[in-house]
Amino acid sequence: MLLLLLHRAVAPGLRQAYRLKSTPARLCIRACCTNDSFQPQRSSFTFSGDNSSTRGWRVMGTLLGLGAVLACHDQQCRASQESPRRYTREEVKSHSSPETGVWVTLGCEVFDITEFVDIHPGGASKLMLAAGGPLEPFWALYAVHNQPHVREILAQYKIGELSPDDKAPSILKTSDPYADDPIRHSALKVNTQRPFNAEPPPELLTENYITPNPIFFTRNHLPVPNVDPDTYRLNVVGPPGGQSLCLSLDDLYQFPKHEITVTLQCAGNRRSEMTQFKEVRGLEWSLGAISTARWAGARLCDVLAQAGYQLCETEAHVCFEGLDSDPTGTAYGASIPLARAMDPEAEVLLAYEMNGQPLPRDHGFPVRVVVPGVVGARHVKWLGKVSVEPEESFSHWQRRDYKGFSPSVDWDTVDFDSAPSIQELPIQSAITQPKEGETIGSGEVTVKGYAWSGGGRAVVRVDVSLDGGLTWQVAELEGEEQRARKAWAWRLWHLQAPLPAGIKELNIVCKAVDESYNVQPDTVAPIWNLRGVLNNAWHRVHVHVTP
Amino acid sequence: MLLLLLHRAVAPGLRQAYRLKSTPARLCIRACCTNDSFQPQRSSFTFSGDNSSTRGWRVMGTLLGLGAVLACHDQQCRASQESPRRYTREEVKSHSSPETGVWVTLGCEVFDITEFVDIHPGGASKLMLAAGGPLEPFWALYAVHNQPHVREILAQYKIGELSPDDKAPSILKTSDPYADDPIRHSALKVNTQRPFNAEPPPELLTENYITPNPIFFTRNHLPVPNVDPDTYRLNVVGPPGGQSLCLSLDDLYQFPKHEITVTLQCAGNRRSEMTQFKEVRGLEWSLGAISTARWAGARLCDVLAQAGYQLCETEAHVCFEGLDSDPTGTAYGASIPLARAMDPEAEVLLAYEMNGQPLPRDHGFPVRVVVPGVVGARHVKWLGKVSVEPEESFSHWQRRDYKGFSPSVDWDTVDFDSAPSIQELPIQSAITQPKEGETIGSGEVTVKGYAWSGGGRAVVRVDVSLDGGLTWQVAELEGEEQRARKAWAWRLWHLQAPLPAGIKELNIVCKAVDESYNVQPDTVAPIWNLRGVLNNAWHRVHVHVTP
Repeated sequence: MLLLLLHRAVAPGLRQAYRLKSTPARLCIRACCTNDSFQPQRSSFTFSGDNSSTRGWRVMGTLLGLGAVLACHDQQCRASQESPRRYTREEVKSHSSPETGVWVTLGCEVFDITEFVDIHPGGASKLMLAAGGPLEPFWALYAVHNQPHVREILAQYKIGELSPDDKAPSILKTSDPYADDPIRHSALKVNTQRPFNAEPPPELLTENYITPNPIFFTRNHLPVPNVDPDTYRLNVVGPPGGQSLCLSLDDLYQFPKHEITVTLQCAGNRRSEMTQFKEVRGLEWSLGAISTARWAGARLCDVLAQAGYQLCETEAHVCFEGLDSDPTGTAYGASIPLARAMDPEAEVLLAYEMNGQPLPRDHGFPVRVVVPGVVGARHVKWLGKVSVEPEESFSHWQRRDYKGFSPSVDWDTVDFDSAPSIQELPIQSAITQPKEGETIGSGEVTVKGYAWSGGGRAVVRVDVSLDGGLTWQVAELEGEEQRARKAWAWRLWHLQAPLPAGIKELNIVCKAVDESYNVQPDTVAPIWNLRGVLNNAWHRVHVHVTP
Repeated sequence: MLLLLLHRAVAPGLRQAYRLKSTPARLCIRACCTNDSFQPQRSSFTFSGDNSSTRGWRVMGTLLGLGAVLACHDQQCRASQESPRRYTREEVKSHSSPETGVWVTLGCEVFDITEFVDIHPGGASKLMLAAGGPLEPFWALYAVHNQPHVREILAQYKIGELSPDDKAPSILKTSDPYADDPIRHSALKVNTQRPFNAEPPPELLTENYITPNPIFFTRNHLPVPNVDPDTYRLNVVGPPGGQSLCLSLDDLYQFPKHEITVTLQCAGNRRSEMTQFKEVRGLEWSLGAISTARWAGARLCDVLAQAGYQLCETEAHVCFEGLDSDPTGTAYGASIPLARAMDPEAEVLLAYEMNGQPLPRDHGFPVRVVVPGVVGARHVKWLGKVSVEPEESFSHWQRRDYKGFSPSVDWDTVDFDSAPSIQELPIQSAITQPKEGETIGSGEVTVKGYAWSGGGRAVVRVDVSLDGGLTWQVAELEGEEQRARKAWAWRLWHLQAPLPAGIKELNIVCKAVDESYNVQPDTVAPIWNLRGVLNNAWHRVHVHVTP
């Protein structure tokens, strides 16, 4: 309790520190991977420097340092020095709530951190993401944990070790077409395992401007292909009179390397709010089907030019085919207008790097399309074939999905040909802190979130209301200003606001404005559609305030 | 009454005719101008052919023909054959409602058309626009009236002639800086006379896809300059190492002539609805501060290229100065990003023709800028100077006006530097028929309106609700499909819907969706701003239904 009070006393100062600008830097994060569940991140990885992305890490360090000092004065060392007790992974997993106790593992050691949860400087909710399982995936994300004094704190909570005979259960059978899917980060909130669709939890989503690869939202339509980079070839069909290209990875590397920060969003992001109004068909995405990465690769316009294509005013589309396919052999496909593909300013990439690393398998290894400002569905992964066609792709996902309709249209009346395939997305924003139903302290509130618009339209303002939309305050946009017409990545934002004495609840709302002064609609019902796509209504969060 | 019944009986058939597609054609409209109030249109003028623009005229002809036949059977000829009664213009003007009687003039003849108003095939509300004044300005717009059988009908209602001594009153004094302003069309709804700001009434606004020049909405900030086309020169300041240009009109004609259909909208369109929520500073525009014309001129990119400018990634702006200026000599000014100006696909024009005619004086004679997809304020009229500057124009109208703010910002707290100048406008739509407060017949309703989005984003759908937004129907978009990303002009739309028996009122709402799936916000209050710009909330019209 004393600790908690101390922690609260220093909190305002820490918030000040949080708002300090830091100078650009490069962070080299060494992943600590002794656990199979973190296999994709075995090698060390590097984030390119960015103000916003590094700031969070530094503050976390400050917080954790303080937490360590405070903790050392009060906690008993429970580490068993000899003949440790043995636990199965199943036993550890069953201790994942305050009621059962909160256990975690690091390597083969087991810790009961129940009493530490509330004084975790990074916040209880973030630590609880690891409850009942290994710490490694999270320490890999937040590298500041890999310090001697943090290990010292943890050592005090040791209660035993994992049973040496207890191996991680093999979940997937080899007869399963998804058996060869990669193993994923345990923080991801899984919507479906087969195909794998998952999003980062809100409290991690806006922790960093650049989303770490392991928690970047994943939208797969089919099993993940396992591509051999040595034999990989990209087939670019040439125009009449031009030449078709068959490009190895090394060939792609010969094109000028172009690097941009781009936010990807699934058309179904925030579908779960639409479902609350009326049932739809689709994955129950919360607000995390959106993430941001630094992508590098060859510009599509350079590759198409080499194949002999020229820009001309035309209705033509550039069609993409993935190497992922269904049991009938039909590959995932989608297309974008040739005009966008050929426009150097549109910066469409054939990307082979994500945050300085080769693409993770879940994100299209070895090559995916990145179409800045455009819906995720067109960023075809595991790219196998590029061709230019007189009209858009005939793929199911181009013509019979990812389209918006009037609320009056149902599955009996829908005419998919009557609506255009989604390309650019509308202005979007959401609140990641506090969470729906949370109880917050009195005095003041900090609201955090993201905002993004399609088509390269910069976010110019985010309004936040604490009273359901009656009055508004302007949030502070974080990070650098965006380039007009080429604002491919989101803005994170926050609002710190005093609360009137005696207030018992808040109806927090956010809405963003883009550089074309497009705004978000007030409510979900009038934009409801049978597939539950394109939900960009005001995001609303109801919280209680402690007296 | 018999006539009215007959008219109703044929109405459904006429509606069918209205929906028939017509083939493209060119319409040569000879203006009938015997009255001073229509001076600017003395010469004959030509509309370039367009499906949508010609259809309305044809149907009007059909309607009028029928009306003529019906009318001839019932009306008495009241034309006085000798020693006609004499009336002053003032007397005519005082007869402008059903209560006082409805009088109009044609040339020097005066007609009492009170009994004809309700059987006017084009609708009573359109005819009432001319009540108490001359018919010529309207017959010039709707050339189908200039036929012998129409004059025959009219002759039956003659009650006398204008007094030969009664000349049209001279409203403006020569000491007035606005004394030299042109004379305008009497159908325009005037918001301010000095400077002149006026919009077409809703019932004329969507009558034609191409807005006739005389009723194109007019937004002037200063007195209209009277420019001599022979001595006119456009000053284009060259880049360092390039050459400044001093272009006569003939010089401008030497550049390739580029012709496009573009909708212009004032940022203050629909401001009056915002005022109803809370007071703002600005002109009380209704929904008519938007119009569409066919513009022709030199492409700005061609002119800039001749001056030696090249496209480079830069924050530079192209600044425009008008020849209109305030008493201190400060000219109207505005700017657009150089990137847009230099992009051939953005089709920015230095326009010298509007609907096949030299620009009318109110619309920038002899040269104005046309920036497709961008707010009207940047389409600088009476263009005198073009220069490329490192940042945007320092003009009041660029930096201290035409910007959007949060509803929380008032005149004590506003920081104009905190918001970007409006360039592209958001998705917009409005209902032009029926009108607010109107009483409509039972059985079915026809709703008409327009929809447009900035940045070349095509309108992909308009939803209409008759119950205040609870349920929606999809309106039919008229005219040809728009080009993706280059949809510079509006779509007109209509919905014909049956009404439930016994329904007493309708709360009609419209909302549009553009190709980036941007939508309109539900309500005005959350987008209210102190200048009352950017109102694109759902448009709502309440009407009564006769039992």
